[in-house]
Amino acid sequence: MIILKLGGSLLTNKEKKFSINRRVLKRIASEIKACEENGKKLVVVHGGGAFGHPLAKEYELNRGYISKSQIKGIALTRKAMQDFNNLVVKEFIDQGINAIALQTSAIVTCENREIKSFNHEVVERFLELGLTPVLYGDVVLDDKLKFCILSGDRIITHLAKILNPGRIVLATDVDGVFDKNPKKYKDAKLIEKITPEIFKRNKLNFESYANDVTGGIEYKVRELLSLAKLGYNTIIINAKIRGRLKKALLGHEVVGTRIEGE
Amino acid sequence: MIILKLGGSLLTNKEKKFSINRRVLKRIASEIKACEENGKKLVVVHGGGAFGHPLAKEYELNRGYISKSQIKGIALTRKAMQDFNNLVVKEFIDQGINAIALQTSAIVTCENREIKSFNHEVVERFLELGLTPVLYGDVVLDDKLKFCILSGDRIITHLAKILNPGRIVLATDVDGVFDKNPKKYKDAKLIEKITPEIFKRNKLNFESYANDVTGGIEYKVRELLSLAKLGYNTIIINAKIRGRLKKALLGHEVVGTRIEGE
Repeated sequence: MIILKLGGSLLTNKEKKFSINRRVLKRIASEIKACEENGKKLVVVHGGGAFGHPLAKEYELNRGYISKSQIKGIALTRKAMQDFNNLVVKEFIDQGINAIALQTSAIVTCENREIKSFNHEVVERFLELGLTPVLYGDVVLDDKLKFCILSGDRIITHLAKILNPGRIVLATDVDGVFDKNPKKYKDAKLIEKITPEIFKRNKLNFESYANDVTGGIEYKVRELLSLAKLGYNTIIINAKIRGRLKKALLGHEVVGTRIEGE
Repeated sequence: MIILKLGGSLLTNKEKKFSINRRVLKRIASEIKACEENGKKLVVVHGGGAFGHPLAKEYELNRGYISKSQIKGIALTRKAMQDFNNLVVKEFIDQGINAIALQTSAIVTCENREIKSFNHEVVERFLELGLTPVLYGDVVLDDKLKFCILSGDRIITHLAKILNPGRIVLATDVDGVFDKNPKKYKDAKLIEKITPEIFKRNKLNFESYANDVTGGIEYKVRELLSLAKLGYNTIIINAKIRGRLKKALLGHEVVGTRIEGE
């Protein structure tokens, strides 16, 4: 079984609210389908991109409850994520994938932004039936803060520990992790492998990366390193390049950043 | 708190796959909003109508697992229900209701079509935050049959016992329960009140009603009578008549069928 994270900035145009990259999404769906035809099972998680992020930011949802006006923000953010997820599931089904949306906020609760309960049974049982569960970053209930934002990255980290996947693939719109932000610096170099040791030794210039509402690249790498320590290796790839996702899903050698335990 | 069921045939055109009665939906949303402005809190549940029913029937989903081809049917039915629910939530939000979709199949499991587990905490907590949860009939996991169809009626019966609502309103496209099918028989008479005693005494001609995938009118009445025995009275009304839903939600006298305990 493979856990696949589809980055929000891969599937949407972050500069433009509620805009989907339909062409990219369609191709990605076809590469996933090709992988399933090779007998692989997948659990897919996608981010918020141009749907969830602008609203979550506007209503400061990740701070938890601070004012009554946020309640409207919860409704709008959840609605936007549901719209986004619907578009993703539609393309998957159109490509012949038996995809099934699973609402993160209905199966997960947090405490101080940490996952407290996760009804993973529903994910496992739909997977076992032969469906492809599709989860997503969402506004979830929080025992301390009343609510918070749960990122897609946090979901895959948690699911990996439960589902014991053979492979974890993070599909983004860049080739992997660079020594500085490749969108800003022409001389940025791709780091092909990060281990806890390499991470400690090299100071990566995370400040040059833009931070989104869910913590950005540094947070992502730290989460994945914690997984790597448990033996779950990840590869971060650029799924904008045709065929790369399919190769990565099938375990072939591809350009990207491998995050591995020692 | 009020539990409101919106019938599938009220919101959709059952003769035409995936067609919504947008004008009716919009007006209903505005009547719900007016009720909320009177300080009432609601939990809303809607049926499958022209979205879920045709697919659930085509793939025989309510029989549980009988063949592999049904897996595609699960994906298509869930997708259709998600689309339907999205349209409902969108109209609610447009009318100023802080609606939040809650995926039934993510929070409920069945055993032989009976509800086995129901994560009602998520419904209660979002309600407490000031949101209006919107659930719907769905394909859910079943411990015995692998999966089954859970009707909106079954959901409200279960939720009523947990949430202890002050009122239960079933909004349909007919004035209530008749002594025979009002769509077929001109001389059909509205039954204004059904109690367990009246139900036993009068043989209602349920055979003349069309049966849908979730059991039709007889099933509905039986479910509501079981609620009435516990002290939860229901009113079935015709929400196609402008203003009737609002009146019923506010507890005013309206045309309809009251289902009450002795």
